[in-house]
Amino acid sequence: MKLATYKDGSRDGQLVVVSRDLGHAQYASHIASRLQQVLDDWNYLSPQLQDVYDALNSGRARNAFPFDPAQCMAPLPRAYQWADGSAYLNHVELVRKARGAEVPESFYTDPLMYQGGSDDFAGPCDPIVAVSVDHGVDFEAEVAVITSDIPMGCPADRALDGIRLLMLVNDVSLRKLIPDELAKGFGFVQSKPATAFSPVAVTPDELGDAWARGRVHLTLQSTWNGRKVGLCEAGPDMSFHFGQLIAHLAKTRNVRAGSIIGSGTVSNKGVEKKGRVDWPNGYSCIAEKRAMETIQDGQPVTEFMQFGDTIRIEMKGRDGLSIFGAIEQEVVPLKKV
Amino acid sequence: MKLATYKDGSRDGQLVVVSRDLGHAQYASHIASRLQQVLDDWNYLSPQLQDVYDALNSGRARNAFPFDPAQCMAPLPRAYQWADGSAYLNHVELVRKARGAEVPESFYTDPLMYQGGSDDFAGPCDPIVAVSVDHGVDFEAEVAVITSDIPMGCPADRALDGIRLLMLVNDVSLRKLIPDELAKGFGFVQSKPATAFSPVAVTPDELGDAWARGRVHLTLQSTWNGRKVGLCEAGPDMSFHFGQLIAHLAKTRNVRAGSIIGSGTVSNKGVEKKGRVDWPNGYSCIAEKRAMETIQDGQPVTEFMQFGDTIRIEMKGRDGLSIFGAIEQEVVPLKKV
Repeated sequence: MKLATYKDGSRDGQLVVVSRDLGHAQYASHIASRLQQVLDDWNYLSPQLQDVYDALNSGRARNAFPFDPAQCMAPLPRAYQWADGSAYLNHVELVRKARGAEVPESFYTDPLMYQGGSDDFAGPCDPIVAVSVDHGVDFEAEVAVITSDIPMGCPADRALDGIRLLMLVNDVSLRKLIPDELAKGFGFVQSKPATAFSPVAVTPDELGDAWARGRVHLTLQSTWNGRKVGLCEAGPDMSFHFGQLIAHLAKTRNVRAGSIIGSGTVSNKGVEKKGRVDWPNGYSCIAEKRAMETIQDGQPVTEFMQFGDTIRIEMKGRDGLSIFGAIEQEVVPLKKV
Repeated sequence: MKLATYKDGSRDGQLVVVSRDLGHAQYASHIASRLQQVLDDWNYLSPQLQDVYDALNSGRARNAFPFDPAQCMAPLPRAYQWADGSAYLNHVELVRKARGAEVPESFYTDPLMYQGGSDDFAGPCDPIVAVSVDHGVDFEAEVAVITSDIPMGCPADRALDGIRLLMLVNDVSLRKLIPDELAKGFGFVQSKPATAFSPVAVTPDELGDAWARGRVHLTLQSTWNGRKVGLCEAGPDMSFHFGQLIAHLAKTRNVRAGSIIGSGTVSNKGVEKKGRVDWPNGYSCIAEKRAMETIQDGQPVTEFMQFGDTIRIEMKGRDGLSIFGAIEQEVVPLKKV
């Protein structure tokens, strides 16, 4: 099942069911008007939405209309929790290696995770509004899940059963604010502006056997200013699966329905060729590209995003069709909004 | 105006208006069923709630019933944002001095703030559920505000106008998990279990002239196992006022209606007497008491909370009446819930 939230001028938008091929959609107002409602009462409401979805896919739906990602808010336009992991340790190794720092041993057994702001998410085609490009605007292409209620102390394997929906994420970062902010020790506040999500959220069954052992075994594409810079495999190098990330978050507290948990920047290990390490799959954030340049040539040359820059993030299924629709954002200055 | 949320078995509870003396309450279902609705549409809905409040206070209310704090959820049982500052620098100085660390110069101009989990708040009389007391269960008595929409880049003085409601907070902390978690650099996740809030949230006018320059000039009382351990003045030593805290959060992103911003542990400067520093106002968290003991005698002797321990947090107005009602929690083990 694929679900989206259409803009209607309200804070939470209107829930729509979207066909598998992302061609058509139908309002679900007779079942639920907001996605959070569905997550709050999943067992009762989701079978009714599944019926709408089946009708849409078989062309039997009444009142279907062409689906337009530009009309979408984030599937959850605001959420009660957004906790982003950093499950691709290759990303951590790369960024640390470039600045000559070690990866602490504990990082291999204890996931990195930060609590993010969830009051003001961006839709898939909303601009990235920046006060200044001097802040070092960067994209971060990720996968995320939306959970059911997860009780405190839930083990990782059971936490997997609590995954209701999957989405793509652009965890926009202000790189030049990060060092000073993290040095204060309390995590990210100013260095993480509005996070954007894919047009649709999908149930795990939509991924078929590409969803296995808590990981998505597909390629995440990042296209920066029209150039494909990342074709990263989301499965193999994910050191902690989503069940482990959820269990980490739930260790000392309950995690409630509608919580969004992110994978962190999708990243693949480098390949050594003739004494030089190369990263044939590219990168899912510019910070990583700059780390690669530093490791290869001693210094970064790629600049962060400028006003007018665009980023497109998408993932295709084994049938070649877009699963989540594309995140397509442009960096714009605050005053122009 | 004083507002609360009554338990009704649902995730968001039922909005009630509470009389100034906290004696009576009335359901506001004919105006709004949930507090978030009111915050989303404040200018339209709050005058209607004010009418109910006026009727309650003058004894004209129909369908009023005795107000029972034990029936309360947090005023916002779940929120889209909870960002907790650390605005009492004396608290930071004390804790750092005890472990022989310096306070960085930037801390005096750039507020400390962390993003907290907001999906599962505790009501004022709900238990503090702990996996283990070996985690070092501590209370933290604080003041918090709930905001309107605050646009990105809003200056501190204008941000003050966006304060809709005030509450008390128990920002429960697991002290022994904090050092390892903060060392990872991404802030708090496992070391901050469910945060609890006072029975009622009040509009700033309820504080009279005790609400001045973005600070609450009243005494915050903390009573641990029946013993008053803190009578801390919330006004004088708050180094950053609430407008500054909100502006800090809004520097690079919009802050949306219903965001909760906390003051951090309320703390007063020590007084030197005969060459020994003393803290006559006591403490608003045990970590601070342990820091005082370390500074005075070289080591901490007070242990953190045990199962069965209780904490009561309250603030009285200049008329001696409780403003927010009391947070009254008991530490209980996970298995007993």
